[in-house]
Amino acid sequence: MEKIPENEIHDRIARFQSILSKKDMDGALLMQNVDIYYFSGTLQTSILFIPREGKPIFMSLKNEERARAESPIQNIVSLKGRKKVAETLKDYGHDQFHKLGIEMDVLPANLYLWLNRHLKADLWENISGEILRLRMIKSDYEIEQFRKASQILRTGFLEIQEFIRPGMTELAVDGRLANIARREGHMGILRMRGWNQEITYAHVLSGESGAVPTFLDSPHGGSGNTPAMAQGAGFRKIKKNEPIGIDFGVAVNGYIGDQFRTYVAGSLSKKLEKAHECSKAILKILSKKAKPGTNCLDLFAIARKKAEQEGLGEYFMGHGKSQARFVGHGIGLEIDEYPVISPGFDMTLKENMVMAIEPKFVFPGEGVVGLEDDYIVTASGLKRITLTDQKIMTVAN
Amino acid sequence: MEKIPENEIHDRIARFQSILSKKDMDGALLMQNVDIYYFSGTLQTSILFIPREGKPIFMSLKNEERARAESPIQNIVSLKGRKKVAETLKDYGHDQFHKLGIEMDVLPANLYLWLNRHLKADLWENISGEILRLRMIKSDYEIEQFRKASQILRTGFLEIQEFIRPGMTELAVDGRLANIARREGHMGILRMRGWNQEITYAHVLSGESGAVPTFLDSPHGGSGNTPAMAQGAGFRKIKKNEPIGIDFGVAVNGYIGDQFRTYVAGSLSKKLEKAHECSKAILKILSKKAKPGTNCLDLFAIARKKAEQEGLGEYFMGHGKSQARFVGHGIGLEIDEYPVISPGFDMTLKENMVMAIEPKFVFPGEGVVGLEDDYIVTASGLKRITLTDQKIMTVAN
Repeated sequence: MEKIPENEIHDRIARFQSILSKKDMDGALLMQNVDIYYFSGTLQTSILFIPREGKPIFMSLKNEERARAESPIQNIVSLKGRKKVAETLKDYGHDQFHKLGIEMDVLPANLYLWLNRHLKADLWENISGEILRLRMIKSDYEIEQFRKASQILRTGFLEIQEFIRPGMTELAVDGRLANIARREGHMGILRMRGWNQEITYAHVLSGESGAVPTFLDSPHGGSGNTPAMAQGAGFRKIKKNEPIGIDFGVAVNGYIGDQFRTYVAGSLSKKLEKAHECSKAILKILSKKAKPGTNCLDLFAIARKKAEQEGLGEYFMGHGKSQARFVGHGIGLEIDEYPVISPGFDMTLKENMVMAIEPKFVFPGEGVVGLEDDYIVTASGLKRITLTDQKIMTVAN
Repeated sequence: MEKIPENEIHDRIARFQSILSKKDMDGALLMQNVDIYYFSGTLQTSILFIPREGKPIFMSLKNEERARAESPIQNIVSLKGRKKVAETLKDYGHDQFHKLGIEMDVLPANLYLWLNRHLKADLWENISGEILRLRMIKSDYEIEQFRKASQILRTGFLEIQEFIRPGMTELAVDGRLANIARREGHMGILRMRGWNQEITYAHVLSGESGAVPTFLDSPHGGSGNTPAMAQGAGFRKIKKNEPIGIDFGVAVNGYIGDQFRTYVAGSLSKKLEKAHECSKAILKILSKKAKPGTNCLDLFAIARKKAEQEGLGEYFMGHGKSQARFVGHGIGLEIDEYPVISPGFDMTLKENMVMAIEPKFVFPGEGVVGLEDDYIVTASGLKRITLTDQKIMTVAN
C-alpha cells in the first residue's frame, strides 16, 4: 500500500506552521479526518495538534498501531478518550493558549462547545480557509495521483462505450462504471467538504434526465431513483439519438479525478453537436488564458462570453433558475476544493493548482452535453491531466 | 419514483411536536439533510422549522420546485439566502423563542454560531437524541423498504457466489457487488451520522484481511487499498480454504439493509466452522430473547456468554485491543442508528425497532467468519428481514 512520502508530510507541516506564525496563532487542533490525513498520512481516528513551532502531536483515539504504520509523525500517543486532550498537550509543554485554530466549517457544534470548555484559549479561530488554500497547491506526488485516477477514468469511459445500448437503464450503466472503478483501484468513496453535500461516483443522465436539477451545486444532477438520494442515475431506459451525459469520479490515494463525457447511440441534433463543440472550444480558450495570475472571475466571464457568442448563453451550466454560477472547481482530497471558477470567486490562479473544468449545456426536455477535464495550472497555461479524447462517444444502437 | 406517504410525514411531525411540547420547546430548526428528509420527504437544500404547534415551515435554499413535488408540507417558501431565516419565521408568527432545538451533533460550529447571532432564543438545546429515538421506531412503510433492500442483498449474495474464484482480487468482487447493487436500485451511498465516520458499500475481506482492524466502530475493517480510505477491499487475491467475509449494504428509498455472509473456496477449518455455527446460535438465542422490554445490555451479555461457553470469547467481535463492544445496531436512514446492543447502551427494546445483528469472530492471521442479519423487534421476539440462508457460502475452487 502506497503511503504519502515522508518529506511531503514534513513539507506540508512546515508550510502550515509558517501560516500559524504569520497569524500569530499558538497552533491548530485538527479533528476532521481529511485534514488529519493531509498533515499526517493516516486517517485513523485522532486529534492532531500542530503547534506554531516544534513537533505535531498525533493523539490517537482508535487504532494507534495502524496510525504508527502509516504516518511519519513522531509523537503518536494513545489518548484513551477525548477528555485527556488538555493533559496530553500539557505533557508536551503546551498549556498556555492565546489563539488556537480549529476547523469551524466542519466541526460539529457539540465538539466545538466541548473544546471551549475543555481547553482554555483566549481566542478560537477558523483555520479551514488557510488549510484549503494550502491544500489547493499540489505537489508532484499529488499530481501523480490525479494521473492514476485519470487512467481509471479512461478505462471506464472506453469500456462503457462498448457496453451501453438503447434500452439499458441508467442504473445498469452506473453499476458497470462502479464495477470498473473498484476493480481498477478506486478507493470507494468521493469526499465533499460542504455541509450536507454528498455525491455518488457517477452521474449517468440520459435524455431529459440530464436537465433535471438537484440540490447539488452542479449544472446537472439527474432525478436519481428516490427522493432520498435525488441525483444521478435512475431506472430510465436509454434511447437512440439522445445525449447520455456521464460524469465519472474516482479517487486514488484520496485524490479525486472528476471528468464528464457525452455519449450517444446514433447521433445528436446539430444544436446539441454545436453545444458540444462550444464546450470543447471553451476548454481550449481557458487552457490558454488560465495562467498564474489570472483571476477566476475573468475566466468565468471568458467562458460565458464564448457561450453567448455562440447563442448558447441561456443553456450554459444549466437553464433558468437552476443555472450554476461556476465552470470549474479545485479537486484534491475533496471534490469541492479551491479555487472555483465563478463570478463570485475573486482569486488569482497559482502554479500547480489542479482543477476540473466542466463547460456544459443543459437543454430542458433534451438533456445535457459537454465535457469535463482535469487540469494543472502551469506557467504556460493549463496542462491537461485527463487521458480521454474530447469527442462525442458514439455507442452501438 | 416512490415518495414517503403523506400520512407518514404528518404522523412523524405530530409525534415530534408532542416531544417538543413535553420538553417545553418552542420548536426545532432542522438543517441536516437526513433529518429534513425524515420529516418532509425531500432532501433538497433547506432549513426546516417545526413549531411545537401548527404547521412546519420548509425554507428552501435550492430547488424549491423539486421540494414541492416531493414533500406534502404546505408551507414551502424560497429563502433566497440564509439571512432571511428570522424574517421568514416572523412572517409566520414565530418571533419569540424561549427554547429552540437544533442538531448539535452534526451542525457545523460556524452555522451554530451564525444561528446564535441571527435568531434570538434564550436557550438552544440539542434535539438530535430525541429525533434519533423517534426514528428508531419504524413504520410499516419503512419496514417495507428494508425488505426491498434485503431482496437486493440476496441477489448480490447469490450472484457473487457464482462469480468468486481463487486468484480474484477482493476489489474485483467488491466491484461486482457494486454493479449488482446499483443495477437493482441501490441509491448509491450509505449514510453514517457519526463524526468522521464513512463507509464503502461492501467490505470484501479475504483471509488475514478480515483481521485487520480499522478506525470504524466495527469488528472487522480490512486494509483497503490506501491509507486514505483504510477499510474494505484491497488488491489481495482470494485463496482456497480461507474465509471470505462479505459485509454488504444497500439503501432503498434511504433505508439501509446491512448484512454479512462468509464465503469459502474449498472448506474452512473445524475451528472456523465452529465459530460460524456459534454466530448462528447467537442469532437464534437473541431472536428469542430480544422482545419489547429487554435491555440492550443484557442482550450483549447473552451473546458474549454464548461465545465464551464455546471457548470463543477472545475472538468475539474482534481480537485484542480492537475488540468491538457491540453485537448489533439500529439501521434506518443512517447505518449507525439506535439502539446499540452493547454493554454501554442502557436502553430497553421497543416494538418495531429494526436492527442489524452481527455476531462475528475474528482470528488474527486467519480472518473473519460470522453472520449479520436484519431484524424487526416484535412482541414474540425478533423477526428476520434478511432473505438469505445462514449457511457458509461455498464457491468454486
